[in-house]
Amino acid sequence: MTKVIQTAVMGVTGYAGAELARLLLHHPRLKNKAPVFAGRLDEKDAARGGVPLEEVHPQLADNNGSRSMKIEPFAWERLVERDVEVLFLATPHEQSREWVPEALRHGLRVVDLSGAWRLTNAKNRAVYAFEDEGSKVAAATQAEAVYGMPELHRAEIARAKLVANPGCYATSVILALRPLVAAGIVDVSHGIVADAKSGVSGAGKAPTAKTHYMHAADNLSAYGVFSHRHTGELLEQIGIGAGDIVFTPHLLPIPRGIMSTIYVRFNAPQTRDSVAQIYRGFFIGSPMVRIYENTLPQIQYSVRTNFADIGFQISSDGRRAVIVSCLDNLLKGASGQAVQNMNVMLGWGEAEGLA
Amino acid sequence: MTKVIQTAVMGVTGYAGAELARLLLHHPRLKNKAPVFAGRLDEKDAARGGVPLEEVHPQLADNNGSRSMKIEPFAWERLVERDVEVLFLATPHEQSREWVPEALRHGLRVVDLSGAWRLTNAKNRAVYAFEDEGSKVAAATQAEAVYGMPELHRAEIARAKLVANPGCYATSVILALRPLVAAGIVDVSHGIVADAKSGVSGAGKAPTAKTHYMHAADNLSAYGVFSHRHTGELLEQIGIGAGDIVFTPHLLPIPRGIMSTIYVRFNAPQTRDSVAQIYRGFFIGSPMVRIYENTLPQIQYSVRTNFADIGFQISSDGRRAVIVSCLDNLLKGASGQAVQNMNVMLGWGEAEGLA
Amino acid sequence: MTKVIQTAVMGVTGYAGAELARLLLHHPRLKNKAPVFAGRLDEKDAARGGVPLEEVHPQLADNNGSRSMKIEPFAWERLVERDVEVLFLATPHEQSREWVPEALRHGLRVVDLSGAWRLTNAKNRAVYAFEDEGSKVAAATQAEAVYGMPELHRAEIARAKLVANPGCYATSVILALRPLVAAGIVDVSHGIVADAKSGVSGAGKAPTAKTHYMHAADNLSAYGVFSHRHTGELLEQIGIGAGDIVFTPHLLPIPRGIMSTIYVRFNAPQTRDSVAQIYRGFFIGSPMVRIYENTLPQIQYSVRTNFADIGFQISSDGRRAVIVSCLDNLLKGASGQAVQNMNVMLGWGEAEGLA
Amino acid sequence: MTKVIQTAVMGVTGYAGAELARLLLHHPRLKNKAPVFAGRLDEKDAARGGVPLEEVHPQLADNNGSRSMKIEPFAWERLVERDVEVLFLATPHEQSREWVPEALRHGLRVVDLSGAWRLTNAKNRAVYAFEDEGSKVAAATQAEAVYGMPELHRAEIARAKLVANPGCYATSVILALRPLVAAGIVDVSHGIVADAKSGVSGAGKAPTAKTHYMHAADNLSAYGVFSHRHTGELLEQIGIGAGDIVFTPHLLPIPRGIMSTIYVRFNAPQTRDSVAQIYRGFFIGSPMVRIYENTLPQIQYSVRTNFADIGFQISSDGRRAVIVSCLDNLLKGASGQAVQNMNVMLGWGEAEGLA
Repeated sequence: MTKVIQTAVMGVTGYAGAELARLLLHHPRLKNKAPVFAGRLDEKDAARGGVPLEEVHPQLADNNGSRSMKIEPFAWERLVERDVEVLFLATPHEQSREWVPEALRHGLRVVDLSGAWRLTNAKNRAVYAFEDEGSKVAAATQAEAVYGMPELHRAEIARAKLVANPGCYATSVILALRPLVAAGIVDVSHGIVADAKSGVSGAGKAPTAKTHYMHAADNLSAYGVFSHRHTGELLEQIGIGAGDIVFTPHLLPIPRGIMSTIYVRFNAPQTRDSVAQIYRGFFIGSPMVRIYENTLPQIQYSVRTNFADIGFQISSDGRRAVIVSCLDNLLKGASGQAVQNMNVMLGWGEAEGLA
Repeated sequence: MTKVIQTAVMGVTGYAGAELARLLLHHPRLKNKAPVFAGRLDEKDAARGGVPLEEVHPQLADNNGSRSMKIEPFAWERLVERDVEVLFLATPHEQSREWVPEALRHGLRVVDLSGAWRLTNAKNRAVYAFEDEGSKVAAATQAEAVYGMPELHRAEIARAKLVANPGCYATSVILALRPLVAAGIVDVSHGIVADAKSGVSGAGKAPTAKTHYMHAADNLSAYGVFSHRHTGELLEQIGIGAGDIVFTPHLLPIPRGIMSTIYVRFNAPQTRDSVAQIYRGFFIGSPMVRIYENTLPQIQYSVRTNFADIGFQISSDGRRAVIVSCLDNLLKGASGQAVQNMNVMLGWGEAEGLA
Repeated sequence: MTKVIQTAVMGVTGYAGAELARLLLHHPRLKNKAPVFAGRLDEKDAARGGVPLEEVHPQLADNNGSRSMKIEPFAWERLVERDVEVLFLATPHEQSREWVPEALRHGLRVVDLSGAWRLTNAKNRAVYAFEDEGSKVAAATQAEAVYGMPELHRAEIARAKLVANPGCYATSVILALRPLVAAGIVDVSHGIVADAKSGVSGAGKAPTAKTHYMHAADNLSAYGVFSHRHTGELLEQIGIGAGDIVFTPHLLPIPRGIMSTIYVRFNAPQTRDSVAQIYRGFFIGSPMVRIYENTLPQIQYSVRTNFADIGFQISSDGRRAVIVSCLDNLLKGASGQAVQNMNVMLGWGEAEGLA
Repeated sequence: MTKVIQTAVMGVTGYAGAELARLLLHHPRLKNKAPVFAGRLDEKDAARGGVPLEEVHPQLADNNGSRSMKIEPFAWERLVERDVEVLFLATPHEQSREWVPEALRHGLRVVDLSGAWRLTNAKNRAVYAFEDEGSKVAAATQAEAVYGMPELHRAEIARAKLVANPGCYATSVILALRPLVAAGIVDVSHGIVADAKSGVSGAGKAPTAKTHYMHAADNLSAYGVFSHRHTGELLEQIGIGAGDIVFTPHLLPIPRGIMSTIYVRFNAPQTRDSVAQIYRGFFIGSPMVRIYENTLPQIQYSVRTNFADIGFQISSDGRRAVIVSCLDNLLKGASGQAVQNMNVMLGWGEAEGLA
């Protein structure tokens, strides 16, 4: 009989955390072994032995409290004692910068959902202004990190100790562009436009003027123009230069889902078939990407799934394309991809627990 | 030529404040005499002479800054110097408790949009736990206050120095029930149910877990069951006892609008006509109430108007009725009714500036 | 090894149909044996051997077409040939009146999601104006029918050939009221109010003026006052008379979810504990009902689950209660409950495939 | 004393029609002279002398029926008898092709809200496949038509007999691009991207699968890629070639409002100031355009106003810009602009009745 792996999650209180908890609790390989949920608790919560998970996420309750689990006060010893093998961090990037090196020291394998370890290029990292930038520990940790997009780095993820789970916007744009750029058909020098739109869960659980219903509903707003943090991921993973793409995110009045509408010019005329073939070829063996050949994906199609949906339309002269890339920002854009990475790390079926 | 009245608004930064500013700026009787907007500003804002109104409410901007107005640092002398005659307070009730007595001392007529002065019965006021409860000043001020619902108290409002503008929920329930209770056809002892639903603007502009888009959207939640602050207004204005009504508010996933679905039993069988006649009779001379005789009003019909819409359906035995009462919580439920009160106070057409 | 059951679904094109397909395709007991999907197809679709399921419901597609299934032209022989044992009908009630008797003749066990066979009392059925009302076949079929609410009729469902799956509104009201009425604590003669609100999927997939986004969004409307079809189910299953309840449905601007806010008066004072105990007792062994003792359920908590969530608040004098009952109209209110019924019929765990 | 102009509206039943009726009924220059509302009625409605306007648009009712107006059966003689001077057509383009020539024959001045007469280039018109294309009458009518965007063609509109009111998307894109292209700073050969998003009212009042709440809500979908009808207007009014722009519309889950996010490359580096100056210069004397210099406009800012809001951000190298252009598709994108055009035609203040 195979050993059941023990997982742990830190930062389970946010939206991505809730999805991660849900996925891990129902994962067929993790049955009967609930994750350890841990966090920095205040005194009162620590005194009562932790916060019941269903207090934070009522949707996760069963009807008799038997699934009741607690968010425990965090301590490295506890994780070690309980033989945790895979640790998920759904924490702010500053916290991930601090905790990941310690986790590695304790021999844990880590999937970090923050932006802390995604960027190999120091120039791209500048936008985060990490306090430990330049330190030896940071450099060594970064050297361990693999960008957690199985469709691009499956083999490295399988061996990785530290997987840097991609950003939600970045995932939607990279999956749509990398295959075409890698195939050499995109006139990169001409410039690419990625006009992206995300549901409000992407803005986090903290109540702010921006996430207030009265602002978010019946509205659309652009933000982070020429300056969004995910830009560095796009450049490194697509393999293009800073001047080659303009990426503009928008806040969409829906709870979840991302659509990126992407505009490219080709080096030479393409057809629907030639482009479809490139995508199909690139994503052979990638169960979580769906290519639409006859219609365009809509946000609804992928919401509450771990699929990335890609469709496209070619201009009549074959020189330009509009690519539409959709996914659920909390699943393929965050927690679903994190579980997909765990599956790859542990040699399980990549789509297990993600149907 | 008639003198143009100078008005002032304190507390213009919230949703009701924005509507009030909009209404006053476009009121035909106030043309060329913009209200004084004032508030307690921090040092930085005071130093730059106030906060441009359009910075807070971009929708109120014109295209060349000519309408540009500032929220000035508040001072009683300023209001007096500028001959302000009517002061609107769209402030929290604690602040209104403090400012209204001073305003009256300075000879201003006041329309207070908070709950500070709506309740004549001390028992009903207990829910607010006013710090000055029982003081002489408070008692004297309360004695001046008229409940600002022109459909019930038009004559007193015309003479009033202090108008206590009704609560939004209260307005929708009182207008639907007072005519029938006053006509003696409701079996009050049997108990009335008022199931009310309000859009999110009713929850205020402060970003909270409750007003976060992810909570408010795609959801419905009941709150304040058996304990909502507006209950006292219902009792006093409808003329019923505490045990005669159950009032339950719900948070609706829409920006604005209230619907109260109200259930009553009659003392004797009624017909559609007999009930319609009571409503029509009660609201003769009330331009801001629409009675629906053949259909039921929907929230959309009254949103962005100052109308209160009332419709009803009678059971086949004539003994029970379901009454549907809708209004815009920011207009007839707040700022529109405040302007309506001002119109009555100044002897103007009750609906002026409210079309 | 246990035999795998073959299921079939007619009427898979609607919203309930999509959920049913999803649930059956992922049900752990039905693995590797997809349901037969069948319908009355037009010539063109019949000629191409049926309609690919993912053409109707793109969300159900996998990424390589391997799950691709077709909605086949319907024929009884086909169902028999393929050893179908349980047939789900997600069809309009007129069609279910016609098909159910035939299905029983063919030896199939049926779960009918329509209102065709829910009502034992002819007077209550009048609202449907069934064409075959009074016929021998109809009477015989009705005699076979069991009201498909496991929490009330588990044993009969286990033996039933025909399960009449309850209405969505009815489920939310019956589960909240039956325990209290059965316990004799409700003053039924006083009258009960059930103010219910449903998301738009409850109004069906046909594009109508009512389901148009511009009508449904940013709105709330009451309908079917004193006349909604689900009233008969309430009376029969709660065990009360026609004059004992007023039930008012509203159309809520959300995709899915129902909340019923229910008002009762008690025969004698109750406490939070006494009421909670009645509920707990009634729902022992019922895995799909969650009782909330400290807070009230919100629509979000049960959406996309098969749980019925019930919470309540008692007035300070213990004489009145407000009960809040929430569920997902497409799951516990339709397809989830249908699968729950199938589980009971086949002796499986009642919650299997519903987590 | 000035004569009061008589107006008439055909096609008042749609969303643009409702806004047009509202604007005309409250226009200060048209007081006491309600428009003639006319349409092709069925026999039953004709027999009762027309359809009460508030039956179609309940929001337009006052509280005593005094404003009650009817949609009358249409007849040219009636319009002539009643001295109609300006006729608004909010009708489908096929109907406008038929009626406009007749209206001109009857000496009426026409503002046509459809796409029937907007395009001077036959190639661009091909997308509409007009049945009378190539006829003398059509050619003569087209020769009379002026594109109804006062910011570009104020003088011609003042003299025009036929004003072709612009498309909603087209308005948002043209106002943002024409000033920069006219100033010669845009590298047109490089290609422009206009990623546009519109609320559901833009899809019309007919209930369709696309306008069903369940499709439109919680979703985003692109459509008309490389083929939208408004493209011709963009080309003709901006003054660019067919290959110079890619325009992609999306259906946004909000009732109203359009945002176009536009990507351009400059011939030479620009600054925030240089671009702002071009916009300011171009829109001198245009009261309905607001330029945002420090922030970006959001859809909410212009919804329910007749303003077109334009903001922009320049890349750090000054070579690229992202322009955000917002408006209300039913006002500046349709009926508001129609009234603006009427104001210009009649020599009134361009913004009258539009505040």
